Amino acid sequence: MKGLDLSPQAPLIVLFTDFGLEGPYTGQVKAALWRIAPIVPVIDLFADAPAQRPREAAYLLAAYVDAMPAGSVFLCVVDPTVGSERPAVAARIDGRWFVGPGNGLFEPLLRRASTARTFFIHSGPEPVSASFHGRDLFAPAAAHLAKGGDVGECGLVEGKIPRFLDWPDDLPVIVYVDVYGNLMTGLRACIIPDDAVLVVAGRRLVRARTFSDVPLGAAFWYENANGLAEVAVNRGRADRLFERGVGDEVQIISAKS
Amino acid sequence: MKGLDLSPQAPLIVLFTDFGLEGPYTGQVKAALWRIAPIVPVIDLFADAPAQRPREAAYLLAAYVDAMPAGSVFLCVVDPTVGSERPAVAARIDGRWFVGPGNGLFEPLLRRASTARTFFIHSGPEPVSASFHGRDLFAPAAAHLAKGGDVGECGLVEGKIPRFLDWPDDLPVIVYVDVYGNLMTGLRACIIPDDAVLVVAGRRLVRARTFSDVPLGAAFWYENANGLAEVAVNRGRADRLFERGVGDEVQIISAKS
Amino acid sequence: MKGLDLSPQAPLIVLFTDFGLEGPYTGQVKAALWRIAPIVPVIDLFADAPAQRPREAAYLLAAYVDAMPAGSVFLCVVDPTVGSERPAVAARIDGRWFVGPGNGLFEPLLRRASTARTFFIHSGPEPVSASFHGRDLFAPAAAHLAKGGDVGECGLVEGKIPRFLDWPDDLPVIVYVDVYGNLMTGLRACIIPDDAVLVVAGRRLVRARTFSDVPLGAAFWYENANGLAEVAVNRGRADRLFERGVGDEVQIISAKS
Repeated sequence: MKGLDLSPQAPLIVLFTDFGLEGPYTGQVKAALWRIAPIVPVIDLFADAPAQRPREAAYLLAAYVDAMPAGSVFLCVVDPTVGSERPAVAARIDGRWFVGPGNGLFEPLLRRASTARTFFIHSGPEPVSASFHGRDLFAPAAAHLAKGGDVGECGLVEGKIPRFLDWPDDLPVIVYVDVYGNLMTGLRACIIPDDAVLVVAGRRLVRARTFSDVPLGAAFWYENANGLAEVAVNRGRADRLFERGVGDEVQIISAKS
Repeated sequence: MKGLDLSPQAPLIVLFTDFGLEGPYTGQVKAALWRIAPIVPVIDLFADAPAQRPREAAYLLAAYVDAMPAGSVFLCVVDPTVGSERPAVAARIDGRWFVGPGNGLFEPLLRRASTARTFFIHSGPEPVSASFHGRDLFAPAAAHLAKGGDVGECGLVEGKIPRFLDWPDDLPVIVYVDVYGNLMTGLRACIIPDDAVLVVAGRRLVRARTFSDVPLGAAFWYENANGLAEVAVNRGRADRLFERGVGDEVQIISAKS
Repeated sequence: MKGLDLSPQAPLIVLFTDFGLEGPYTGQVKAALWRIAPIVPVIDLFADAPAQRPREAAYLLAAYVDAMPAGSVFLCVVDPTVGSERPAVAARIDGRWFVGPGNGLFEPLLRRASTARTFFIHSGPEPVSASFHGRDLFAPAAAHLAKGGDVGECGLVEGKIPRFLDWPDDLPVIVYVDVYGNLMTGLRACIIPDDAVLVVAGRRLVRARTFSDVPLGAAFWYENANGLAEVAVNRGRADRLFERGVGDEVQIISAKS
């Protein structure tokens, strides 16, 4: 397809799903990828993306894309309405491919893109189960793209995929609680003014550079290693201290107010 | 060994264990596989097979075999009596290899096989720990088989392994609870009559095609993406609604009764 | 660097971290390793090393090194004071490389080494985040070492790293609770006299060879498959029976006392 900078082979396939760590889901997706693209390595980025919450997942995904090599193919599945009429889509955004459900998962990426083209995925000759599009539809498409197949061979047809234009550019909501109890927000730290504080559960938090810059047990927010504003407690757990989790709101307010 | 269709090299080694996701068990097994078969990729299918329950694990395993490529070698460890006199076994079933304890784990597969040959595994020159046969005995055998070694080199001697002929062809028991709270049974959906209902915790459940075909919050059963009858709740958790888990029974009854 | 037996390429990179299984940490480390050493396989040994406890983690790590191939590069991150002034270090110990924070994580290994050389790691031209040295500092160093780079290219400068000489040779403390509820201690079984008993939570435990050598439900200790004294219950959970976990003490006493 002319004008589309398909690389000869993707360096990596990156998995971003809410499959959870347990169970047979990720393994079957990897076997499906292997059948088509056996020599492209697969990296597990998130298997615990916000479960069944495409909006929160979308802002989380957007923050982690740059940590993966240029040319990577992202296979993304947070898909509470699998089996319904939501379309299967793909997007070529700034040199990377994204494959998954058309439910807003790529909205912040499209919003921030320098170059983007969007596609619908049509299933191939193999049967597609009603409940596991990750294995039967998205994985084959991602694997063909990773091999450098042209978009037609990959089952892609260019078109305007659903957009979610009422979503904000940054999401003032907790989008992930990590293993240490830190609360990642959908806010890029770079958009928060220096003279602002972050409010979580009614508590005003000031910005720090990192954990060791605040006293033991102190709560603060900082720019995490992927650019998101993240709420943390030095040697403690912010999720327990604030009793907040994925989907809960945060606020940015002026430090003077 | 004549008559045995050993492929030159297995495409994949597939792990099916109850090691759990945590801890050093799977990593050490992978290092043991790597020593012998460094270029055969390893896929984690289940690390959370029914813990210490070979019977439930056996019906779960049988449903997931077809999702893996022909010629794959399955390394299976659900082995509550490791260190006792239960034998170490291998089976060549319809073109795939299965390696593990002789405690019934391969019984449904043998029952449903078109072609099957069974073997005992004898340990090689390396010392075998009393508690970690997965690493010290099964992994080396699986790796040698994956490399296409002949059965003698792999420590295999053909013989009649223990059979569990009192087990049913399909198991009306919950064999797995997935990350979404869905209850997988040991029943293949294809053996359940159209006019039957599934009874779980005293509740009669009708069949649906998939989640989006029932109202939000409704319980139902459906044929999952691997052919098992699975109990689910649209946007909810069946494990919590029914307070049932691995080992609990289900019933198939006529819808007219 | 003369005198240093750098292998041309490491067979494996081994991950030993407290990142947890969830979240984007291990995936980003693997992508960072892949950028520099794409063809060296990576094995996940522990992602759940004792969280933020370098001392317990150190004795656990030491027991698992021999299960990995000679020449492996260990990337080790248990690093509660990341961002502070603790140095980044590497050690060449008996033919393997260890990379991580200079907080004692390699102390038992150094104590037991036949040959050891130690190094400080200096960051390269890429920016290093304040909170994720695993990805930005340790992974690049480990990957360069795995490729067989010389120590200068890898950012290493030989020097005396911090030692923790007040730590014991074996640690009479629980260092890991596994998925089965078994309590691993920091004690090598080989240092415990035959006529000794292990005391946990006030209960005296005798030694057994393995699970099937004691009655159902009985508590005992045994030499686990990596040489550590481990407390277990046949078909039960020692963590629940004794209500003990990581950091809790055990005692070795004479059976006659």
